[in-house]
Amino acid sequence: MLHCDTLIAPQWCAPVAPANGLLSDHAVVVNDGRIADLLPIAEARLKYQPSVFIERPGHLLIPGFVNAHTHAAMTLMRGLADDMPLETWLGKGIWPVEKRWVGAEMVRDGTELAIAEMISGGTTCFSDQYFYPEIVAETAVDLQMRVMVGTPIIEFPTAWASTIDEYLNKASDLVHDPYADHPLVSTCFAPHSANALSDESFVDLRVLADQLDVRIQMHLHESTIEIERALKKDGQRPIGRLQKLGLVNTSLLAVHAIHLSDAEIEIFAESGVHVTHCPKSNLKLASGLAPVAKYRRAGINVAIGTDSAASNNCLDMLEEMRTAALLAKAQASDAAAISASDALRMATLDGAEALGLAHETGSIETGKWADLACVDLNRLHSQPLYDPISQLVYTARAEQVTDVWVAGRHQLDKGRLTQIDTASLLARCNEWRDRFASSTN
Amino acid sequence: MLHCDTLIAPQWCAPVAPANGLLSDHAVVVNDGRIADLLPIAEARLKYQPSVFIERPGHLLIPGFVNAHTHAAMTLMRGLADDMPLETWLGKGIWPVEKRWVGAEMVRDGTELAIAEMISGGTTCFSDQYFYPEIVAETAVDLQMRVMVGTPIIEFPTAWASTIDEYLNKASDLVHDPYADHPLVSTCFAPHSANALSDESFVDLRVLADQLDVRIQMHLHESTIEIERALKKDGQRPIGRLQKLGLVNTSLLAVHAIHLSDAEIEIFAESGVHVTHCPKSNLKLASGLAPVAKYRRAGINVAIGTDSAASNNCLDMLEEMRTAALLAKAQASDAAAISASDALRMATLDGAEALGLAHETGSIETGKWADLACVDLNRLHSQPLYDPISQLVYTARAEQVTDVWVAGRHQLDKGRLTQIDTASLLARCNEWRDRFASSTN
Repeated sequence: MLHCDTLIAPQWCAPVAPANGLLSDHAVVVNDGRIADLLPIAEARLKYQPSVFIERPGHLLIPGFVNAHTHAAMTLMRGLADDMPLETWLGKGIWPVEKRWVGAEMVRDGTELAIAEMISGGTTCFSDQYFYPEIVAETAVDLQMRVMVGTPIIEFPTAWASTIDEYLNKASDLVHDPYADHPLVSTCFAPHSANALSDESFVDLRVLADQLDVRIQMHLHESTIEIERALKKDGQRPIGRLQKLGLVNTSLLAVHAIHLSDAEIEIFAESGVHVTHCPKSNLKLASGLAPVAKYRRAGINVAIGTDSAASNNCLDMLEEMRTAALLAKAQASDAAAISASDALRMATLDGAEALGLAHETGSIETGKWADLACVDLNRLHSQPLYDPISQLVYTARAEQVTDVWVAGRHQLDKGRLTQIDTASLLARCNEWRDRFASSTN
Repeated sequence: MLHCDTLIAPQWCAPVAPANGLLSDHAVVVNDGRIADLLPIAEARLKYQPSVFIERPGHLLIPGFVNAHTHAAMTLMRGLADDMPLETWLGKGIWPVEKRWVGAEMVRDGTELAIAEMISGGTTCFSDQYFYPEIVAETAVDLQMRVMVGTPIIEFPTAWASTIDEYLNKASDLVHDPYADHPLVSTCFAPHSANALSDESFVDLRVLADQLDVRIQMHLHESTIEIERALKKDGQRPIGRLQKLGLVNTSLLAVHAIHLSDAEIEIFAESGVHVTHCPKSNLKLASGLAPVAKYRRAGINVAIGTDSAASNNCLDMLEEMRTAALLAKAQASDAAAISASDALRMATLDGAEALGLAHETGSIETGKWADLACVDLNRLHSQPLYDPISQLVYTARAEQVTDVWVAGRHQLDKGRLTQIDTASLLARCNEWRDRFASSTN
């Protein structure tokens, strides 16, 4: 018998890769934080002696979700400014609060709330874009959550940095130390959007990103206003400008990417650009419907992200995945446009691929980190059960996520967060709410 | 002190009418199944002596949801045939199973599963359209749920009836007896769609509906194919044909109503037709995006329904209401198109209005039935809390519904169904699943 740390025996397992199908009565063997084996339960019982044996009848085990776009700290602004057009939302709701309150402590508490919600809903990795990325990384490490932190880069002074040089220096510092080869943290550059930087700054950024081998994620073609303004200012659409500046390549994560011409879709496909689709935020801010089925058919990798809780208002990848699947069908006028299996892959492995982490997470394959979520399908509203993956995508709610492991650590144990003191967290959130509520107009 | 059956003291109350706002620290007094009073908790404590006193700090009390369009028994086909275009879904998934298995017992079990799910999610009234409506009504009465049963009317033989006369006779029997003036059950006629009946049958139906004073609900302008076929067959669009036959009036519930011309919108508004919006089903079957903000601006009453669990796949009015609000924003390119308060009203009082029950349910007003739902907002993903109604609409999940009353009966008590043996129910559902799974092609 071989020793292993944990043996997980769900009723079904959807490994996503190498095949995106369903396994029944298989066990996942976890050792040293990684997936050591995936084999029939009967064989596993004979072969392995686990320290911990987890049996979950009626449950489906899936790779943990990759939430490919968040502004985690903004979870403290959940519901602060709803039902407002984008400009009002920013101008009256978000910016006054950010100007007054963004700081290390706010980012720490907001990120902790976000991580608590994400783990509870089966997310094991998130790609963040906010001020104080070093605090986001620190908080994720403290709570043992996987993160790709995006360092903000913008051509005006904020509490975090003043000049473009300071932004770039701080960003490259973070890449080097202490997060080179960290088991949980990776880094990327996150200029806010194409209009946030001059041509010169984008060129500097590209050179630096190439040197450091990090990705660049930014909001891109999120709204028609953004494109119209760029046309007026630069005489070209943002994607065209970025292409000329050498940024349209496999290192680019285009977040939202709602309004693309056919030529731009072709450019993205040929260049290997990744798209992060944020369906609920796109609906709530009335930004539009991204034609993701068309993108996928063209060969573009499409990840799924919740965006911030201030424009969603959840960090719930089950609901986000469901919305992505449903919306794609209507957008494409084709009920088969995105299947349940497609949606699960987008929310896991395709997200990992977009973050450059597909060799480490996003599927239940031997050698990858044991980033896993177990979902109870034995609930009234998931019954009767014909197809577990279909039921997961079209019916499951976050409360059905019973267990979550990040790098093999049991982060959610029968619905209970093991690393987070939720009473203390909620008390701190209420303090921030009182401060923020006094700052909105 | 006055005696009362139940005193409910939530932290907040959203009565929806007469004002669609928020009350803090108010109590609802329930007596003989009806709302006897709504007043500040401090005053209620001095004035009333309740048999049962329910305190719910951190909870929001709302009118129970009105699910304005279901095919409850089809809950047994949840997930039986996903990711298929409408024609394939019907031809290969649904119809073979219905042909083989629809009967009184199947309708009873499926309806019980639907009611269990609906009560668990805060729904206290549903408008159903399926075969064996007498069994739907009987099941609802057994489980003490409010229902409007729609009697199927279609010009071909099914297990329930053979000729149009038999359909109409069975339908009018049900209206008369035993459900005239029943406290929980009302009835309506439910021809499947405009192409299901000849002109003559529609005229007979209208005369009968007028005599009996019942509503007519039908799928109408759900798909472009439906409209194209009607143009080819009748030389006119279904709404135009129904208008000439005298059916376009305040008694008509147009279900789906996705594809309306501006002229048709005007006709609906002027005639007082009610629209039942089924956003998730419309997405899943790729039927299209109904411009509901436009309808409401034109003055059309818009209710919300889940449609069947076979094309949704949930009967979850919280998620349906959220999807309706989010989708309307994107559809109208206006983030303010449907506010959280608007969405709550659509899912409650506007639904009751569509069913002709606005004098009996749909808001927390003295004299109406005590059809109520209590929602716990003290969860991580609903925090911090700036606006309870906004948080309800944009973040709440069915698991947060802790208590539900239908006509004053405590149907869900701290998350536990009081009238339904869920173990026995799930066992019966599994038997149906095994039967159905053997019938699909």
